[in-house]
Amino acid sequence: MNIGIIGGGAVGLLFAAYYGEQHNVVVYCKRKEQAQKITTEGIKLKYEDNYLVVPVSGKGTMEDLKLQELIIIAVKQHQLESLLPLLRTLPRHIPLLFIQNGMGHVSILQSMLQKSIFVGTIEHGAVRMGDRAVSHNGIGKTNIAVFKGGSTVINTFPLLENPLFPVVFNHDYLEMLEAKLIANAVINPLTTLFRVKNGELITNPSYYEIFKQLYHEILKCFPKWDNHYIDDIIKICVNTSKNTSSMLKDMTEGRKTEIEAILGYIVDKGKKESVDIPVARFVYRAIIGMEIERGIRAK
Amino acid sequence: MNIGIIGGGAVGLLFAAYYGEQHNVVVYCKRKEQAQKITTEGIKLKYEDNYLVVPVSGKGTMEDLKLQELIIIAVKQHQLESLLPLLRTLPRHIPLLFIQNGMGHVSILQSMLQKSIFVGTIEHGAVRMGDRAVSHNGIGKTNIAVFKGGSTVINTFPLLENPLFPVVFNHDYLEMLEAKLIANAVINPLTTLFRVKNGELITNPSYYEIFKQLYHEILKCFPKWDNHYIDDIIKICVNTSKNTSSMLKDMTEGRKTEIEAILGYIVDKGKKESVDIPVARFVYRAIIGMEIERGIRAK
Repeated sequence: MNIGIIGGGAVGLLFAAYYGEQHNVVVYCKRKEQAQKITTEGIKLKYEDNYLVVPVSGKGTMEDLKLQELIIIAVKQHQLESLLPLLRTLPRHIPLLFIQNGMGHVSILQSMLQKSIFVGTIEHGAVRMGDRAVSHNGIGKTNIAVFKGGSTVINTFPLLENPLFPVVFNHDYLEMLEAKLIANAVINPLTTLFRVKNGELITNPSYYEIFKQLYHEILKCFPKWDNHYIDDIIKICVNTSKNTSSMLKDMTEGRKTEIEAILGYIVDKGKKESVDIPVARFVYRAIIGMEIERGIRAK
Repeated sequence: MNIGIIGGGAVGLLFAAYYGEQHNVVVYCKRKEQAQKITTEGIKLKYEDNYLVVPVSGKGTMEDLKLQELIIIAVKQHQLESLLPLLRTLPRHIPLLFIQNGMGHVSILQSMLQKSIFVGTIEHGAVRMGDRAVSHNGIGKTNIAVFKGGSTVINTFPLLENPLFPVVFNHDYLEMLEAKLIANAVINPLTTLFRVKNGELITNPSYYEIFKQLYHEILKCFPKWDNHYIDDIIKICVNTSKNTSSMLKDMTEGRKTEIEAILGYIVDKGKKESVDIPVARFVYRAIIGMEIERGIRAK
């Protein structure tokens, strides 16, 4: 199957490596040097002490995107908008998979004319180690759900038979995205504010109080979710205790974080629905303030 | 006049230097080496590019404390408790001045049998530069009020005629302490959480939103104060914009902060009076968490 992946970040390269083993993969990158390097050297995948090189193509132009049979959009939510005009020109029969964090892109996807649209969430830990190398630090799942096209289109989605990269289907895309959003909204901003690894949020008793405080406040915006979901988020912190969250990594490395897509979405939701969430607003502003302080965001 | 100062920190040394120019001052220190150094070398006071050496005595024992005509207690609030048994043995006629941050010591002072008790708040910027040296980085006021003894005892308090060290009398000790507490409760924990200098709280628009959010929440516990007091706190941030707050300094240097005396007092007040102050609780827990993370406080 011809699969196009837009985005040469950690997630894009991880997908390229695992799908590239069984499919014909092209990675579409912003920088032509990266594209060229991927074409000539392939993706280098590191897992524990193993290295694997997977030959895939890189493209610095989006011209032949319309030849793909599935397109995976692996850019951050705040980079999605600039991509939309291009995606709207694609033949309607090409299925798209969006794997952004947050929920902000849901309203965007509703206006797209594509026949089948999937959304996904990713639980892997992955760090880009250069233009063509990615280190797979934590095995998670890739959760996929049908956003548009009816329940049967899920059968058209290419499965992988690799235990290191399991793909799991979900029936309810909204529940799937909300689960990921709530977990991200608690773990990412707090680890960034305190500049700690994920595990510290539950081993430090005072940070853990804060963790619960923020969780219960956020839940006021998601009344369908019950208090027990916190146990799943605690498990994520246990399983990724030594990981640096993606938001803390973005902040430390001077990149714009996904705070708008994650906590910004919830703060907006609170405002629209008149739910008072002062701590969520505080944490949201703290991360924005840190971005301003570091010159990542304009005043 | 014989003046005893308990505490050889930045504030104790600053008082010793300025009062030592016109009075007979003894500094009571925990460490005998510090006491000896003060006796043999005097207090070295740095102000801008000027250095002044003021001869005063240092004592490593509290034996002759009862010979003093005024005792200034310049230890932190959390160090006060261990000092109380000693203070209770002093002749009742010796006036005491307490210059702790916070309000927690007010209930302690109520049980003391001394005839005259003063409380004070300090606006100076001062940094200890060693056992006997202090740098006076910001000129502020010393505010004094009578806590016990009647309004006329204020006349017994020794004035100084030094424009670098103005002493101002206040009629209402509660108002005076609350003013300092509220300002400290906003500036100190936020600068510590974000690890920024005081000015950043008002020049960074997102931190400034947080500054206002925390201020307005704290004010719910102090209904007599009005919204305009925030202008005074903003002025403090302007005047001390390049200063590192004492709490951030304590945290960075691995010392216990005054969070309990400052925000802890307000969180307790909120609990007792059933005033909901989630952001104040969040910030309080954040600082406690930072202390735990750094091993300054036990889990």
